[in-house]
Amino acid sequence: MFKELKKQCLEANLMLPNLGLVIQTFGNVSIVDRKKRCFAIKPSGVPYADLKKQDIVIVDFDNRVVDGAMNPSSDTKTHAYLYKQWKNIGSIVHTHSTYAVAWSQAQMPIPILGTTHADHLVTDIPCIPPMDNELIKGDYEYNTGVQIKDYFSSEKLNPKEVQMVLVGNHGPFSWGENSKKAVYNSQILEELAKMAYLTLQINPIAPKLKSTLIEKHYQRKHGANPYYGQKK
Amino acid sequence: MFKELKKQCLEANLMLPNLGLVIQTFGNVSIVDRKKRCFAIKPSGVPYADLKKQDIVIVDFDNRVVDGAMNPSSDTKTHAYLYKQWKNIGSIVHTHSTYAVAWSQAQMPIPILGTTHADHLVTDIPCIPPMDNELIKGDYEYNTGVQIKDYFSSEKLNPKEVQMVLVGNHGPFSWGENSKKAVYNSQILEELAKMAYLTLQINPIAPKLKSTLIEKHYQRKHGANPYYGQKK
Amino acid sequence: MFKELKKQCLEANLMLPNLGLVIQTFGNVSIVDRKKRCFAIKPSGVPYADLKKQDIVIVDFDNRVVDGAMNPSSDTKTHAYLYKQWKNIGSIVHTHSTYAVAWSQAQMPIPILGTTHADHLVTDIPCIPPMDNELIKGDYEYNTGVQIKDYFSSEKLNPKEVQMVLVGNHGPFSWGENSKKAVYNSQILEELAKMAYLTLQINPIAPKLKSTLIEKHYQRKHGANPYYGQKK
Amino acid sequence: MFKELKKQCLEANLMLPNLGLVIQTFGNVSIVDRKKRCFAIKPSGVPYADLKKQDIVIVDFDNRVVDGAMNPSSDTKTHAYLYKQWKNIGSIVHTHSTYAVAWSQAQMPIPILGTTHADHLVTDIPCIPPMDNELIKGDYEYNTGVQIKDYFSSEKLNPKEVQMVLVGNHGPFSWGENSKKAVYNSQILEELAKMAYLTLQINPIAPKLKSTLIEKHYQRKHGANPYYGQKK
Repeated sequence: MFKELKKQCLEANLMLPNLGLVIQTFGNVSIVDRKKRCFAIKPSGVPYADLKKQDIVIVDFDNRVVDGAMNPSSDTKTHAYLYKQWKNIGSIVHTHSTYAVAWSQAQMPIPILGTTHADHLVTDIPCIPPMDNELIKGDYEYNTGVQIKDYFSSEKLNPKEVQMVLVGNHGPFSWGENSKKAVYNSQILEELAKMAYLTLQINPIAPKLKSTLIEKHYQRKHGANPYYGQKK
Repeated sequence: MFKELKKQCLEANLMLPNLGLVIQTFGNVSIVDRKKRCFAIKPSGVPYADLKKQDIVIVDFDNRVVDGAMNPSSDTKTHAYLYKQWKNIGSIVHTHSTYAVAWSQAQMPIPILGTTHADHLVTDIPCIPPMDNELIKGDYEYNTGVQIKDYFSSEKLNPKEVQMVLVGNHGPFSWGENSKKAVYNSQILEELAKMAYLTLQINPIAPKLKSTLIEKHYQRKHGANPYYGQKK
Repeated sequence: MFKELKKQCLEANLMLPNLGLVIQTFGNVSIVDRKKRCFAIKPSGVPYADLKKQDIVIVDFDNRVVDGAMNPSSDTKTHAYLYKQWKNIGSIVHTHSTYAVAWSQAQMPIPILGTTHADHLVTDIPCIPPMDNELIKGDYEYNTGVQIKDYFSSEKLNPKEVQMVLVGNHGPFSWGENSKKAVYNSQILEELAKMAYLTLQINPIAPKLKSTLIEKHYQRKHGANPYYGQKK
Repeated sequence: MFKELKKQCLEANLMLPNLGLVIQTFGNVSIVDRKKRCFAIKPSGVPYADLKKQDIVIVDFDNRVVDGAMNPSSDTKTHAYLYKQWKNIGSIVHTHSTYAVAWSQAQMPIPILGTTHADHLVTDIPCIPPMDNELIKGDYEYNTGVQIKDYFSSEKLNPKEVQMVLVGNHGPFSWGENSKKAVYNSQILEELAKMAYLTLQINPIAPKLKSTLIEKHYQRKHGANPYYGQKK
């Protein structure tokens, strides 16, 4: 049971160090099984080099361990909340990748400065302000999920369109319809974070991408008549 | 048919991730066959790890697919236009390499600051300003080619002498008499972009290379009596 | 005799170049044997590529070579002093890793700017000011140990809680209950140094992590009811 | 004839890309044979991946090719002049390593900011100002050698003590008693260049290392009673 899900979850987690997005235990991937209303997630504090299929933990949307002997990731409640709220996402990735963390610690959104960014999303990559003290002292990881969801609602951001976010002082979360896409988004986010950093070092007043270019690059990939990529 | 051309095009495309110039699908190489008036180019949106010889698409100078089952790169019209206009180039490379994109997003040419640069070209690496809105809304990728060609004409730049350019907000294009040289130029461009970035971080008023040094380094490689490299 | 200790010490030293923390001879790991009151340490000036098990030197707490034909690391007296003073540490690592050295040369502590940092320690990473001239001219490496110990005492820092330090103008030292943890800490220190550098380049007035977040992240890992990691 | 010298020269040249100090053709190593008054050097413009033992060129101190079918490095006259003037050096390395080039282009010496630097030399790494126009138009590469030698004489720098230099606008040269040491110095120079760059980004007014620390670190390695490294 959950054999295939655990296998996929292991493989997705191992992509993080291979892509240079994490060291030691700095991240986690989860994959949801919507029918069974549970998800597979990395165990807490286990280095990627030691990770085995049977270590993967299966958790339901109320954070109860369904299968597995280890403690799930300390970020589990954040994952669970987002799966509950956002019905269309299939996988969530959290890392402490270097440049994305730097923007999170700077408490600044990553501005849309070029077409590389616009090929993936049409807004800045949002950076959610640090949590109120009461929420931190309460159910912190659950509240991180609440905060992400509420921010997207209040800013009218669509998690199908914007598949990445920075949590201020903490680091990036990304998601997608499956783990391949969610991991892809975490790599893209790190690269956009590095490009934006370098751009503003070279030219601190570099203007944001103009709206016609944003629109064009987005439409050619995600619009009504897309001509980027292959027919599916 | 086109077997050898596709093979060469595959190999040239695979050099981009090997040289650290691209991640995921962030670039494309094309190679022209002047006799048959067509060129081989990477298919759109296919990650380098999955790319096979038979995926390479053959396109004519009017952007019609001559051979191949996949959609060609979304940048195909830019390649086609440049092959049509510049009779001497044999291959074109487009990447989203990190430092070259940063200068493109900064909307600044890469200044000629040292002999590493002068060994390859005697001017700044040009950065073309973002396109007018009407052109973006029109045939965008075709117009990118038009823009590059027109900029070189108006600035009296010779594409045999200056084999690289930044498209503002987008990223670098390079070319050469064959794919080896075009890929070489894309690697050199990225390295020059990094060196110039670091130089100006260390000394924001670092002067440009003086004309006698530019002339000397260029002449020893490309002048009437070159003594750099081997006789051919 | 000391066979197992030398083997462990060799393996721990070889982790430094594998993790990208040192080039050439830029670092050393020691492991203590509390019962025998001595420790194993890298020989001085030997590149990691050439290092063999039999090269590891065994030294007592008064810096006398107990076993081994080579000269121990020039930093040996610093290690010996710290083992003598701090009874709970099992291993010490010294490197010249790039970003940690940069902060040391800047003579600035690494500020706590995010949760990655707070997961490991609740204070800035201290940077000890350069030594007085009289101490440098005296028993320099011994005095480096004295300086570290005295700084922790005067600042009321607990070496069980803060397992890393920068020595001004010089570079980082880290430690832990065993060599795995001490090397882990040297890698974490380098990553925190890079993240803090980038954060302040992006936002020079980025605020320090607020105390509730520091407390929460630290408690979930090191507090009375930790839920980070696995039961031991 | 020259078989062993060519073999050593090939191996030393191949270390440069392996250490990440060069891409493409961005550097060259030479090794001298004092008895035969000639030296082995990389051929001009040949990528490291293609380099073979028989490609290495043997040149005398007056720049005449003694053995080998290829053109020697375009920097050959610089090497020849330095071998003629400095009787104690056995090998010379020239690279365009990224951070060292950045300081060269910034036209600034690399300040001595820490003990990593002091372990290798007790002064800033000198940066020679760009050459006068008349000298550039004349025998440029020969004059680069003259310029290095004259700068060391006028500044009373001893090439046995200071084994590395930046040529303004161009890049680094290093040397040593043999090729192992000369290549080592080129790697150290690049690392010191990166550390100094980062230090001044973090703290633009970081003070230079004080003289007692310079003296101590240098003496323990190169002084009358050195205790760094092994007896020879």
